[in-house]
Amino acid sequence: MTKGRLEAFSDGVIAIIITIMVLEMKVPHGDRLEDLRPLLPVFLSYVLSFLYVGIYWNNHHHMLHTCTGVTGPMLWANLHLLFWLSLFPFTTGWMGENHFTTVPTALYGVVLLLAAIAYLALQQTIVRSQGQDSILKKAIGRDWKGRLSPVLYIVAIVAALNSPSIGQAILVIAALIWLIPDRRIEKRLAT
Amino acid sequence: MTKGRLEAFSDGVIAIIITIMVLEMKVPHGDRLEDLRPLLPVFLSYVLSFLYVGIYWNNHHHMLHTCTGVTGPMLWANLHLLFWLSLFPFTTGWMGENHFTTVPTALYGVVLLLAAIAYLALQQTIVRSQGQDSILKKAIGRDWKGRLSPVLYIVAIVAALNSPSIGQAILVIAALIWLIPDRRIEKRLAT
Amino acid sequence: MTKGRLEAFSDGVIAIIITIMVLEMKVPHGDRLEDLRPLLPVFLSYVLSFLYVGIYWNNHHHMLHTCTGVTGPMLWANLHLLFWLSLFPFTTGWMGENHFTTVPTALYGVVLLLAAIAYLALQQTIVRSQGQDSILKKAIGRDWKGRLSPVLYIVAIVAALNSPSIGQAILVIAALIWLIPDRRIEKRLAT
Amino acid sequence: MTKGRLEAFSDGVIAIIITIMVLEMKVPHGDRLEDLRPLLPVFLSYVLSFLYVGIYWNNHHHMLHTCTGVTGPMLWANLHLLFWLSLFPFTTGWMGENHFTTVPTALYGVVLLLAAIAYLALQQTIVRSQGQDSILKKAIGRDWKGRLSPVLYIVAIVAALNSPSIGQAILVIAALIWLIPDRRIEKRLAT
Repeated sequence: MTKGRLEAFSDGVIAIIITIMVLEMKVPHGDRLEDLRPLLPVFLSYVLSFLYVGIYWNNHHHMLHTCTGVTGPMLWANLHLLFWLSLFPFTTGWMGENHFTTVPTALYGVVLLLAAIAYLALQQTIVRSQGQDSILKKAIGRDWKGRLSPVLYIVAIVAALNSPSIGQAILVIAALIWLIPDRRIEKRLAT
Repeated sequence: MTKGRLEAFSDGVIAIIITIMVLEMKVPHGDRLEDLRPLLPVFLSYVLSFLYVGIYWNNHHHMLHTCTGVTGPMLWANLHLLFWLSLFPFTTGWMGENHFTTVPTALYGVVLLLAAIAYLALQQTIVRSQGQDSILKKAIGRDWKGRLSPVLYIVAIVAALNSPSIGQAILVIAALIWLIPDRRIEKRLAT
Repeated sequence: MTKGRLEAFSDGVIAIIITIMVLEMKVPHGDRLEDLRPLLPVFLSYVLSFLYVGIYWNNHHHMLHTCTGVTGPMLWANLHLLFWLSLFPFTTGWMGENHFTTVPTALYGVVLLLAAIAYLALQQTIVRSQGQDSILKKAIGRDWKGRLSPVLYIVAIVAALNSPSIGQAILVIAALIWLIPDRRIEKRLAT
Repeated sequence: MTKGRLEAFSDGVIAIIITIMVLEMKVPHGDRLEDLRPLLPVFLSYVLSFLYVGIYWNNHHHMLHTCTGVTGPMLWANLHLLFWLSLFPFTTGWMGENHFTTVPTALYGVVLLLAAIAYLALQQTIVRSQGQDSILKKAIGRDWKGRLSPVLYIVAIVAALNSPSIGQAILVIAALIWLIPDRRIEKRLAT
């Protein structure tokens, strides 16, 4: 039941983050199709962030599914993750409104990186609280996606400083990797 | 319990979408009744979208009621639906502020169409996951409303390009159809 | 469980309405105490609306507590109530920014009245679905508060057309009435 | 179950408050790192408030964990707490945009103080409803943090009137105190 409330609060914050991002797409004054064109980068930026927030929600959902209880450090590690996710609307809006230029793209990557680190820290906190027989530890195994993502974000940040479009491409790939179905945790829970 | 979290997250996003739409009705500076007149189209646009979001919440509620478990593909199909719903505040605001002219009305219809397709895709994903004896499959039966709606949206989009008011009328009718009580799923669950 | 989702969705919408109202209090540019003075009417308007939304949440909470199942008509009657509640941020902002003048005060009362009617309609829908032995019907009994409120709103609207401050006073009294503890439903559930 | 709804509503409101605060960080027009510099005080103000709202959520979570039922006075005491928390986005934005000057810092402290008093009032209401053997009463014991916080807020308000930076420092310390793990309630529940 305690876990239920942690999930409910996280769901609330993530649901608001995902919906607030769309507010950056300001309704234009004209009513022609051309009036929407300036919004295209903001829209693309929104799609990418929607995908990322969706990935976080999905993974968070699976990760907490392995928990039975909730400890004090888990509450704080979870709030730490939500803090970085709460900056997504800002970095998404800044990147979109500036047409994916260097600094906004790099900052977008930095916040993604910090969220990824916060996610790994939360994962570690849960594994530690579950002790030797941690289901989560067995479930994540080598966890290549969780380890590859931060590396890709760092590469994307460095690349963006030279060529924002290459940085963008890496951030898109880093998101698409998570769409490949991952049955680790589902399998563990079934057995 | 897994299902509970999918419902809670969807409820959160839908609740925020429905409430954020009202923010497009900006508080006017004057304090006379006439000062509200320019807001009338935005208000009517809000009423129509509130009705549509309400319909989606209602149907989503009934559809998930037939599920017992949740699979990875269902999570993504659900996020896909929420993505198109999240664009409602934007298309509602654009249509309302431009007094239901051609392009905004057509775009409003396009987003409705894409949400309807996403809804059918989610329905298919659930039916497939339930296997041969899918309760949902039996419950939806021929599903004339679910099949008629996308057709009406297409007709409305095409009509709006010539006469926005005819397009609007079709969109209103397509919403009202859903208010006719539909006891398919309730009946199936009762038996 | 079905009821759980109706409650969760209503809680979400009401939580967002109550929080969105505060956004009408725009952060002023100056940093002196005097710079806050123009916000005072907006603040007072917010306090009154916070109280009203709180009353609705409280009553909604008690009313649904008597339900066991949820029917289609109840879902729509509930959405109808949420629709009128969703207009509170707009009428609150308009009334506050115009320093409680005639028309905004009257409109504030009109939306309160329509929400009260929607609430009574939802109550009726639940009572009807519970049949002869409706716990809710017995619990509300003569329901003097529920019947007095719409009358007070009408009096307040008419009074506001002549003297906004008398209209305001009646709206404040109509809210304070609900703060008097009401143990009808709690008692019925206990027995 | 009644408790579940009180928690769900509070979670919703707190989740929205924490996320709405980030909207005060307006996306700048330029795309250079320097364009972010004016946002630094708003960001720092956001970090402090995120921490405070997180502390309130954490404590609220623990406090309600000791409850079994919910009474009418508890619902109102909880709404009273949510009211003061709902003013955090405003005071946070005002303090951040005015670079932590005297009056905004003092007002920030005043709202913190009123929220702390509302929290203690809610705690008292719960303790009283639990009677002689109140688990919460035993759990909070001498409750040095809960008693020290309001004192620190008062000191911070007075200090801010002379030196805003000293006031700020005290407010930061008053937040950090809560990060020290507090196992009182967890221990009581375990035994």
